[in-house]
Amino acid sequence: MTTIIEEKQTRNSTGFLIKQRAFLKLYLITELEKGRPYGYNLWEDLYEKFKPFGYKPGHSEIYRALHELEDDEGIIKREIIKKEGSKRKEVIIYRIVDPDKAKAYKELVKVDMDRSMHIIRKALEDNYA
Amino acid sequence: MTTIIEEKQTRNSTGFLIKQRAFLKLYLITELEKGRPYGYNLWEDLYEKFKPFGYKPGHSEIYRALHELEDDEGIIKREIIKKEGSKRKEVIIYRIVDPDKAKAYKELVKVDMDRSMHIIRKALEDNYA
Repeated sequence: MTTIIEEKQTRNSTGFLIKQRAFLKLYLITELEKGRPYGYNLWEDLYEKFKPFGYKPGHSEIYRALHELEDDEGIIKREIIKKEGSKRKEVIIYRIVDPDKAKAYKELVKVDMDRSMHIIRKALEDNYA
Repeated sequence: MTTIIEEKQTRNSTGFLIKQRAFLKLYLITELEKGRPYGYNLWEDLYEKFKPFGYKPGHSEIYRALHELEDDEGIIKREIIKKEGSKRKEVIIYRIVDPDKAKAYKELVKVDMDRSMHIIRKALEDNYA
């Protein structure tokens, strides 16, 4: 089990722009806060949201992010429930089990997001003035 | 020899934020346009510029970017010259050999940079409103 700080140090060693994994984990927390717990829908929403920007997150990226939020951060938990209106079919849902940790993670990512924004803004000024 | 387009496809397949390599190549072209041709100074300037942002590009990243600008893009050329005031010491300098290609590369990177800015801005709105 790695902490958020350790992860940040290993994943982001040169301190360039925010990593895709952290970016996705941020969105997944926000979606779960809004009560949208189905893995497939989480992927579909993000895919549609960013298609106009030319960014197409893959299924596997989303699932890796969900696994890290569960196993490494301890922020969410996966549950298997009966599908509505069905006796046998089961679906996997995710829910936030530690709202304080979720909030702390989002705050940490915000610092990295603001930093990334400043780096890009500076580069646009320095190279296209 | 890969073209800029091929590189873009392989390096940036999911279309997330701009890659560090392209970002550094952009700055190196701009610095060379300003007539600052020494490899070490190019690194030092970028290192100092981004230190306040927590981003510390390494030597090797800068040299890999310079090599790609020479070998893959054909935009710059490395030359060995006598050091000023010295009969024996030699230094390596870089200069732009294809200004049109340099301009085209910068324009391509600008598209990716603007796109990255929009993605980050959207994420800030969506997750911290």
